[in-house]
Amino acid sequence: MFRNTLSDTIIALATPPGKGAIAVIRLAGNDAISIADRFFFGKNLTKAKGNTIHYGKIKDEKGKIIDEVLCSVFKAPKSYTKEDIIEFSTHCSSYIIDQILQVFLRNGVRQANAGEFTLRAFLNGQMDLSQAEAVADLIASDSAASHDLAMKQMRGGFSEEIKILRSQLVDFASLIELELDFGEEDVEFADRTHLEELVIKIRSVIGKLLESFQLGNVIKNGVPTVIAGKPNAGKSTLLNKLLNEERAIVSEIAGTTRDTIEETLNIKGIQFRLIDTAGIREAKDTIERIGVEKTMEKIGNSALIIYLFDVTEVIPDALWNDLKILKDNVAHLILLANKMDLYPTLRPEEYYKKGLISKENLIPISAKNNMNIEYLKEMMYNMILEGKINDDQTIVSNSRHYEALHKASEALQAVLDGMKIGVTNDFVAMDIRQSLYHLGEITGEISSDDLLGNIFGKFCIGK
Amino acid sequence: MFRNTLSDTIIALATPPGKGAIAVIRLAGNDAISIADRFFFGKNLTKAKGNTIHYGKIKDEKGKIIDEVLCSVFKAPKSYTKEDIIEFSTHCSSYIIDQILQVFLRNGVRQANAGEFTLRAFLNGQMDLSQAEAVADLIASDSAASHDLAMKQMRGGFSEEIKILRSQLVDFASLIELELDFGEEDVEFADRTHLEELVIKIRSVIGKLLESFQLGNVIKNGVPTVIAGKPNAGKSTLLNKLLNEERAIVSEIAGTTRDTIEETLNIKGIQFRLIDTAGIREAKDTIERIGVEKTMEKIGNSALIIYLFDVTEVIPDALWNDLKILKDNVAHLILLANKMDLYPTLRPEEYYKKGLISKENLIPISAKNNMNIEYLKEMMYNMILEGKINDDQTIVSNSRHYEALHKASEALQAVLDGMKIGVTNDFVAMDIRQSLYHLGEITGEISSDDLLGNIFGKFCIGK
Repeated sequence: MFRNTLSDTIIALATPPGKGAIAVIRLAGNDAISIADRFFFGKNLTKAKGNTIHYGKIKDEKGKIIDEVLCSVFKAPKSYTKEDIIEFSTHCSSYIIDQILQVFLRNGVRQANAGEFTLRAFLNGQMDLSQAEAVADLIASDSAASHDLAMKQMRGGFSEEIKILRSQLVDFASLIELELDFGEEDVEFADRTHLEELVIKIRSVIGKLLESFQLGNVIKNGVPTVIAGKPNAGKSTLLNKLLNEERAIVSEIAGTTRDTIEETLNIKGIQFRLIDTAGIREAKDTIERIGVEKTMEKIGNSALIIYLFDVTEVIPDALWNDLKILKDNVAHLILLANKMDLYPTLRPEEYYKKGLISKENLIPISAKNNMNIEYLKEMMYNMILEGKINDDQTIVSNSRHYEALHKASEALQAVLDGMKIGVTNDFVAMDIRQSLYHLGEITGEISSDDLLGNIFGKFCIGK
Repeated sequence: MFRNTLSDTIIALATPPGKGAIAVIRLAGNDAISIADRFFFGKNLTKAKGNTIHYGKIKDEKGKIIDEVLCSVFKAPKSYTKEDIIEFSTHCSSYIIDQILQVFLRNGVRQANAGEFTLRAFLNGQMDLSQAEAVADLIASDSAASHDLAMKQMRGGFSEEIKILRSQLVDFASLIELELDFGEEDVEFADRTHLEELVIKIRSVIGKLLESFQLGNVIKNGVPTVIAGKPNAGKSTLLNKLLNEERAIVSEIAGTTRDTIEETLNIKGIQFRLIDTAGIREAKDTIERIGVEKTMEKIGNSALIIYLFDVTEVIPDALWNDLKILKDNVAHLILLANKMDLYPTLRPEEYYKKGLISKENLIPISAKNNMNIEYLKEMMYNMILEGKINDDQTIVSNSRHYEALHKASEALQAVLDGMKIGVTNDFVAMDIRQSLYHLGEITGEISSDDLLGNIFGKFCIGK
């Protein structure tokens, strides 16, 4: 179905809506240049060379000037979609953008669907599916780590790895298929020992990729982090100290304000998403007393809990209870003894004694005086990521890829199991084909309209 | 001062911040190409021809790839600012935009000030001041009429008219200055009758331009329109009926949503700004009873009041009072007798009799059934604009221009007065110079840093 729409000429605003100096409107398709030429007055676009820019006016059907624009011409196959592409750089007025879009929509051009330009780039062989998905990840990336991950995937590192695994299997698969062709004759072109070795090797590579997904997910989506504690424990001071510097950097460069300044904290290129657990924050007393299911759910879904208490207060039993509850529900817990500026007596032994927290997880701080705040960040990073990020390693961050790898691995296990119990060749061949299918899904060698619709539907319009 | 900064190389995001497919980052200045070339890997930009596009990667100082981009090269003087310009078309991620800006900010490039690219276009003689101002108007334009007005001004129609007036005066001024050079000798190079004729002619042209300002203001800023009436009179139904269609058109084209859907209504290309007079809308009873000064202020500042009442109710004295108050404060008033679908008996004579409203200003409607809604729009337009918009006429829409024209006109009046009472040549010459000064301010032949700072400071960054 998607292939049938490749002959349409499509149009969309490629830049964000809103206030700015210029906007870019993109046309792609067989007739992009000739249709654009009908409404562009300056250079004859049909005679323009590829990768050139021309100044001119866009006029509507009645000859009324809509805007003075720059027109970039890209000629197939040297363009993003490998088709002819026209990009109009216009004054950034929603009225002008509307008018230009409408002129073309009235004249044989169709509004592009979400992600349709990138879909075409994929269908026309400009990039494989995993690379196309990385384009969306790249646009969404908001930290050094997620950016690097997307960039690596877009540049084909991951696809390459999958393709190598797949091609090794394909060789064996074709030998086994050949054996099947010989039917009853007892021939063996595919060396079973070698096949077994290969399958084991591939499964181990896939296993490592599967393992990397947890890390990939953290890099892509951030580390869900809950800051909890009683209202007077100093949470907002801590939050401000953690966030202040970040915010300053963001607002330093005018015109690049991020869409939403959520409470995210960037430590060494990794986003920590500080989750608003209204339940805990607004808690009048303790977690236990509130006992809101929702809060506990948020805590359960977090990767890291930072629990803050006021060290000048007598430690109430409630704190011990909180810690006990948290310890059972959370992978990583940092306990902060705040207000150290007030010279309290902190007796860490009490905490260790109860077995609720280990030495490195209890940090005395003064949010007010910035004491140990940098050390806290270091600890947050180490707890989740120390030693895990490795430049050479391929990291899976896409849940679709994870699923496909998982299925491929299962099919390969079936190959091994089958050979062990001596199933017939056609079963072995079937399981190998199955694993080839799932590996092919990742790069798009195998794809369905449903799958493509699902992937590209999540893109923005204009990409 | 501004001229001294022309040697800086400046950078800014030219497209709006937010979600989109691509972003454009613009560099301008003497070193734009050579600095860009240090971080762009693909084509050697210093050897690239003007108006060409090149695919490549942007890497930071450490060689880390920030993005794969398209790089457009413009060579002086064939560019917007008449300088060398580089435009990077990048993936639209705030992280990537930040990183690219920072690389250049660390390496001898300065963040552009608001409007600095257009300021340079002006300083380098690409356009005059009134045309530069029209660029901002064009970007802000949100209706056919305001767009046409800005486009006409940007294309130089208005400047041309001012320049012609000015050059005619300049000829006379130089003749009179020549007379002054001859000192005591009684020479007369400038024919006083001709001068008087010319000044009268120019004043009449300026007079027409001054008159057009009211219209220009309405076109540019919309017609401030208040919809008033008691809460149950059907205001929101009317508002929806007036606005519905509009909103549908806006949302038809995905990706072009306007920044703010204020309650504005476009009638034949003119925006009517429906002003939220909370005071009136939420009024429990009548305007008089509320008597909020603020509401009356809004009413006083509006160009048009639409007063709605429920025709099925017995007309209370309050209505007569409201109308009396409105009549004294508002230039244009439309009285809507709503709920005509309920077959009430409407006795228009009562209204006319009291002299509060004329026949054409009382419109029976049914907001619910869409009765007379189109007619109402027609009336709204006619009341404000009928016969006033004329394709050939030059319309002043900028209050700075209005002020300068006004001062030029006063100076010319002083020329006439002076000649009448026979002042000496040097006084006449001074007044002529004064009017030349004010006319020159419009196109920027006369400009100060203060003036330029004021004008371009209102632009967005990146323009």
